[in-house]
Amino acid sequence: MIKVGIIGATGYAGGELVRILAGHRDVKIMWYGSKSYIDKKYCEVYQNMFRIVEDVCRDDNLTELAEQVDVIFTATPQGFLAGVLTEEILSKVKIVDLSADYRIKDVGVYEKWYGIEHRSPQFIPEAVYGLCEVNRDEIKKETRLVANPGCYTTCSILTAYPLVKEGLIDVDTLIIDAKSGTSGAGRGAKVANLFCEVNENIKAYGVTSHRHTPEIEEQLGYAGNCSVTVSFTPHLVPMNRGILVTEYASLRKKADGSLPGEEEIRAAYNKYFEKEKFVRVLEPGICPETKWVEGSNYVDVNFCIDKRTGRVIMMGALDNLVKGAAGQAVQNMNLLFGLPEAEGLELVPCFP
Amino acid sequence: MIKVGIIGATGYAGGELVRILAGHRDVKIMWYGSKSYIDKKYCEVYQNMFRIVEDVCRDDNLTELAEQVDVIFTATPQGFLAGVLTEEILSKVKIVDLSADYRIKDVGVYEKWYGIEHRSPQFIPEAVYGLCEVNRDEIKKETRLVANPGCYTTCSILTAYPLVKEGLIDVDTLIIDAKSGTSGAGRGAKVANLFCEVNENIKAYGVTSHRHTPEIEEQLGYAGNCSVTVSFTPHLVPMNRGILVTEYASLRKKADGSLPGEEEIRAAYNKYFEKEKFVRVLEPGICPETKWVEGSNYVDVNFCIDKRTGRVIMMGALDNLVKGAAGQAVQNMNLLFGLPEAEGLELVPCFP
Amino acid sequence: MIKVGIIGATGYAGGELVRILAGHRDVKIMWYGSKSYIDKKYCEVYQNMFRIVEDVCRDDNLTELAEQVDVIFTATPQGFLAGVLTEEILSKVKIVDLSADYRIKDVGVYEKWYGIEHRSPQFIPEAVYGLCEVNRDEIKKETRLVANPGCYTTCSILTAYPLVKEGLIDVDTLIIDAKSGTSGAGRGAKVANLFCEVNENIKAYGVTSHRHTPEIEEQLGYAGNCSVTVSFTPHLVPMNRGILVTEYASLRKKADGSLPGEEEIRAAYNKYFEKEKFVRVLEPGICPETKWVEGSNYVDVNFCIDKRTGRVIMMGALDNLVKGAAGQAVQNMNLLFGLPEAEGLELVPCFP
Amino acid sequence: MIKVGIIGATGYAGGELVRILAGHRDVKIMWYGSKSYIDKKYCEVYQNMFRIVEDVCRDDNLTELAEQVDVIFTATPQGFLAGVLTEEILSKVKIVDLSADYRIKDVGVYEKWYGIEHRSPQFIPEAVYGLCEVNRDEIKKETRLVANPGCYTTCSILTAYPLVKEGLIDVDTLIIDAKSGTSGAGRGAKVANLFCEVNENIKAYGVTSHRHTPEIEEQLGYAGNCSVTVSFTPHLVPMNRGILVTEYASLRKKADGSLPGEEEIRAAYNKYFEKEKFVRVLEPGICPETKWVEGSNYVDVNFCIDKRTGRVIMMGALDNLVKGAAGQAVQNMNLLFGLPEAEGLELVPCFP
Repeated sequence: MIKVGIIGATGYAGGELVRILAGHRDVKIMWYGSKSYIDKKYCEVYQNMFRIVEDVCRDDNLTELAEQVDVIFTATPQGFLAGVLTEEILSKVKIVDLSADYRIKDVGVYEKWYGIEHRSPQFIPEAVYGLCEVNRDEIKKETRLVANPGCYTTCSILTAYPLVKEGLIDVDTLIIDAKSGTSGAGRGAKVANLFCEVNENIKAYGVTSHRHTPEIEEQLGYAGNCSVTVSFTPHLVPMNRGILVTEYASLRKKADGSLPGEEEIRAAYNKYFEKEKFVRVLEPGICPETKWVEGSNYVDVNFCIDKRTGRVIMMGALDNLVKGAAGQAVQNMNLLFGLPEAEGLELVPCFP
Repeated sequence: MIKVGIIGATGYAGGELVRILAGHRDVKIMWYGSKSYIDKKYCEVYQNMFRIVEDVCRDDNLTELAEQVDVIFTATPQGFLAGVLTEEILSKVKIVDLSADYRIKDVGVYEKWYGIEHRSPQFIPEAVYGLCEVNRDEIKKETRLVANPGCYTTCSILTAYPLVKEGLIDVDTLIIDAKSGTSGAGRGAKVANLFCEVNENIKAYGVTSHRHTPEIEEQLGYAGNCSVTVSFTPHLVPMNRGILVTEYASLRKKADGSLPGEEEIRAAYNKYFEKEKFVRVLEPGICPETKWVEGSNYVDVNFCIDKRTGRVIMMGALDNLVKGAAGQAVQNMNLLFGLPEAEGLELVPCFP
Repeated sequence: MIKVGIIGATGYAGGELVRILAGHRDVKIMWYGSKSYIDKKYCEVYQNMFRIVEDVCRDDNLTELAEQVDVIFTATPQGFLAGVLTEEILSKVKIVDLSADYRIKDVGVYEKWYGIEHRSPQFIPEAVYGLCEVNRDEIKKETRLVANPGCYTTCSILTAYPLVKEGLIDVDTLIIDAKSGTSGAGRGAKVANLFCEVNENIKAYGVTSHRHTPEIEEQLGYAGNCSVTVSFTPHLVPMNRGILVTEYASLRKKADGSLPGEEEIRAAYNKYFEKEKFVRVLEPGICPETKWVEGSNYVDVNFCIDKRTGRVIMMGALDNLVKGAAGQAVQNMNLLFGLPEAEGLELVPCFP
Repeated sequence: MIKVGIIGATGYAGGELVRILAGHRDVKIMWYGSKSYIDKKYCEVYQNMFRIVEDVCRDDNLTELAEQVDVIFTATPQGFLAGVLTEEILSKVKIVDLSADYRIKDVGVYEKWYGIEHRSPQFIPEAVYGLCEVNRDEIKKETRLVANPGCYTTCSILTAYPLVKEGLIDVDTLIIDAKSGTSGAGRGAKVANLFCEVNENIKAYGVTSHRHTPEIEEQLGYAGNCSVTVSFTPHLVPMNRGILVTEYASLRKKADGSLPGEEEIRAAYNKYFEKEKFVRVLEPGICPETKWVEGSNYVDVNFCIDKRTGRVIMMGALDNLVKGAAGQAVQNMNLLFGLPEAEGLELVPCFP
């Protein structure tokens, strides 16, 4: 039995970790960390867990926690983990960090986009970027610290990955238009996230400045072995869960001057995803819908070639709290501990 | 491995059966019956099941199906099963009927409220009303035909059951005000169920005439050992899933002229539900919310005494597609086949 | 031109006052009071008013305001107006108070249900309860202080009023089950009102203890000329606007022992509402829906007789921000100043 | 008094025409055409109009109607008007066509994208494309037939218009990612538009093939005086009303090799829109939201320069049923009859 501690267990991502781990056969949650609700029963914060979780919330003492568990999930604000992580902690426990603290290798880029100083950059080099389908082998190797990818980034990267990797698109033309449900904004009490402000409304936000941009660029840069600069625009959609990305890029001319066709593009997607349990390349002509992946760890992807403009429109959908956060974190944990990768993640999407 | 056939597999309740049974260890679905989509791949109708279900839809031939499976779920319109059921079929296979055909013992009442002739009333007597928490023992005994309760009725009955059973309320004063998500209206293409008609709207419907009324009355009558007539008013709420009932009744005076208090009422709830896995009596002061049971087989109940009026306000919440339909159907199947009652139903509610 | 000041202009009810008054020909808003946004442009708080309102928000100085305007709307928390109102202010300006401070004649009842001390009970006697359809004549008479009714109360009272007034129902059996959109909860940043907490969810709240209860009881008591005690249960519905009430009461036997029939009940509704512009008695068999009154000052009412139980089910729908708050406040202002009652309120409901 | 006939009065756009014209001082609706509801009272189809509209629905006889009214609005499926329009009709009455029949000058393009034969191409040349802000003068001149623009197109064109017109962007790089509420899909009873299918879901549709594409291209081509080919991707959003477009284009280098800056771009928007009542260029840094224009005839636009990529992200929001359909149609009618352009359209956006 793997002993698990969660810091930030009462945020939406933390709550989803609890939900998923409740169905994981090899895990026992030992510590429900929540600074805001110390000593309160967890199921009083999330009544859906009534009679399922009996524990009370505890504080976020990482040092103490490291003594008691095998793995810690940190579903905490940016800067928290970087501020408290030590070699001693890492020597005792594995960490899957759902924040952005160790996702970006260039600390300068992190500090610029997040506007905070990184207080433990010495751990950045060893952190493995936990996009399981891409970095599976590396995660399995002695990794102590996994930087769990962001919700937008997981969706954005996987949707474009095969075409960037195979050089089928001109990465300089890549534009990512992303739409997210509101749970991505977290459980903080802000006017902008009130029901009446979000419902019957859609807006873009963080235009040209969203923090997931450099993360997408770095990872697609590794895939394409080149520098990548993208336009990334997130939108807030009146639904609880789900991210949909619509990505645009010009197809790259082949040696003979022609553009790659439907078959070549599809072959690229199949090359990387055919054997992936959690990435479903949909049948031709079917556009991903967030509802089809709700509650599950799937990413649905597909594409459409626009012959008139020479572009390919790539689309991807996932549940931001599952594959976009807690699900992928559990997938990473499974890899870290040599468990079957899908253990606890055989979640059938719920419709309607 | 229990072989299962589903008739009406592409309605919302049928789809939920497929979702739940996909996670049931002792079951294999052999037949996805759907008159509207014969020969179409099931996952093309419900894309959430892509790469999970590979089968194609088949017709609704009950006779043929009875040869191939151990149990049939009929998630079909009223009158369908009554029109085709035969002794031969019942001799070969168990049936869990999600329609109303065998729920009401008095065929005259059925025909009056449903406005159709019952074409096989001979099977009504042997049908067991599948409200598991109430009729568990009877369901387990050689039952061939289970009448799976309606969504409103499951919620309405369980919420009031302990107080009716214990004679703590005056049943003549019982009023049930019920609110349902829109999946209860089914997947038929009707203007009234279009997004723009339901969204940002709430209305009562079927006032004084909803078909679940006699079903509630019959079952509460058994509980109270008396004739019960209730006012039942359903409402359509702009959400996908969930039923909430708010029930009002005058407390019955005790011999000493006083009214039952908080403790007696709570004791009654605990008497019947404390050991029930799927009925959660919430802590004092906590009102049930549909979101807390979403996707799960739970019914959450609680109550509030109104000293000023001498009434008790009882509240209950469930997911209409799970405990209100498919989940309870699977619970019944588990009972029929001697499996652990919760097998396949360890569904943790999804929040948010 | 009537000069208007609004205190609490940036709450939802205040915002609705601004929207409605923007279309009122005889009014000019001179003061947008908002303690939270002093010196900020009003249209930066509500961007829908961009290029429509150019003013900045000001503080809530009632004394100063009284010098500058003819009428003040206070859309403020309970206790605010009672804490600052003086004879001097009232001698200079008329006030339409959207809070509960002067709605309840018995200050003890107010203090008990609201849990605060009333700091200017001397003005309670002169305050007129601004339910226009009931108290029109009194409002018109030299009134200085109008207590604008609550949203739930307006809907609850008007829906039952004719039957209480005509003695057609047994008021002791009256039960009000109310459902409200989320704007009724105000614009405060609370976790419970976040999109993800409200969306896809329904719950009762304030069961047996909601503050609108004594207001309903007092007013229906005047109508029935008797003491009235009701069960009132509000529910939170995932929509922005709208209140629906479903009310249950036993019909009162007539001298000959029979119950009032469809025609008598309808005649009672017509007697009081036929000539009312803003109360629409729907055609037989049509249930009110909140969407049909959205954005307008209408209340739609109807009823259904339940012969089996001897009850009548009364239903009413309104827009909580219009007839339930700002619209009725403007209607009151029109009455106070001798304007046509519907001026500025010819708002056609918006569908879908 | 201008006499108005509406063909297709019971669709969502037709219903919005009725709502808007109910508040127009110079108009009387003489004919509520609705093939599906002939002889039914209009307010039984749209109960929001109860006690506001007393008329019954009539058929769609354009010839007869032309004798009785001054202007006809056709809110009908593609091909309807083209199939029945004659010179005789046009000699008697002005027509504002909300369908696509006369929007596209090249009949071959129309027939290719719409997949139907155009049955009266002889009227195409005289039809004026009714984008009021762009073609105001032409609409005013003796026009008999106005082709009212599509919802997506109005939003897409106006959002990019100043930058295309001024040559500030490279039109070959223009990508339009559009998001629409569900009323845009009409009131037809289709499974795909049921509440449970749309709610909690977002998807792209009509990728590379949506019929509004050539309309956008033609109009932006006139603006830029060049051939324009765009990628246009619409998405379905779980809300009733509203369209948001997010448009991406590379800024065009100036003679000195530099890119246009914030000021130049803003100046371009102001040049065309500063005096336009219905186009609001938002303050720097404010992203348009559909909720801010709901129920009104406004289009809110703004932009953001992405220095890293050399692109400008343009954003626009409107209410698809108002400025995207009925509101603009009324604006066109006002122009046709020499009325103040905003008559009947002083609609204040409703929030929340």
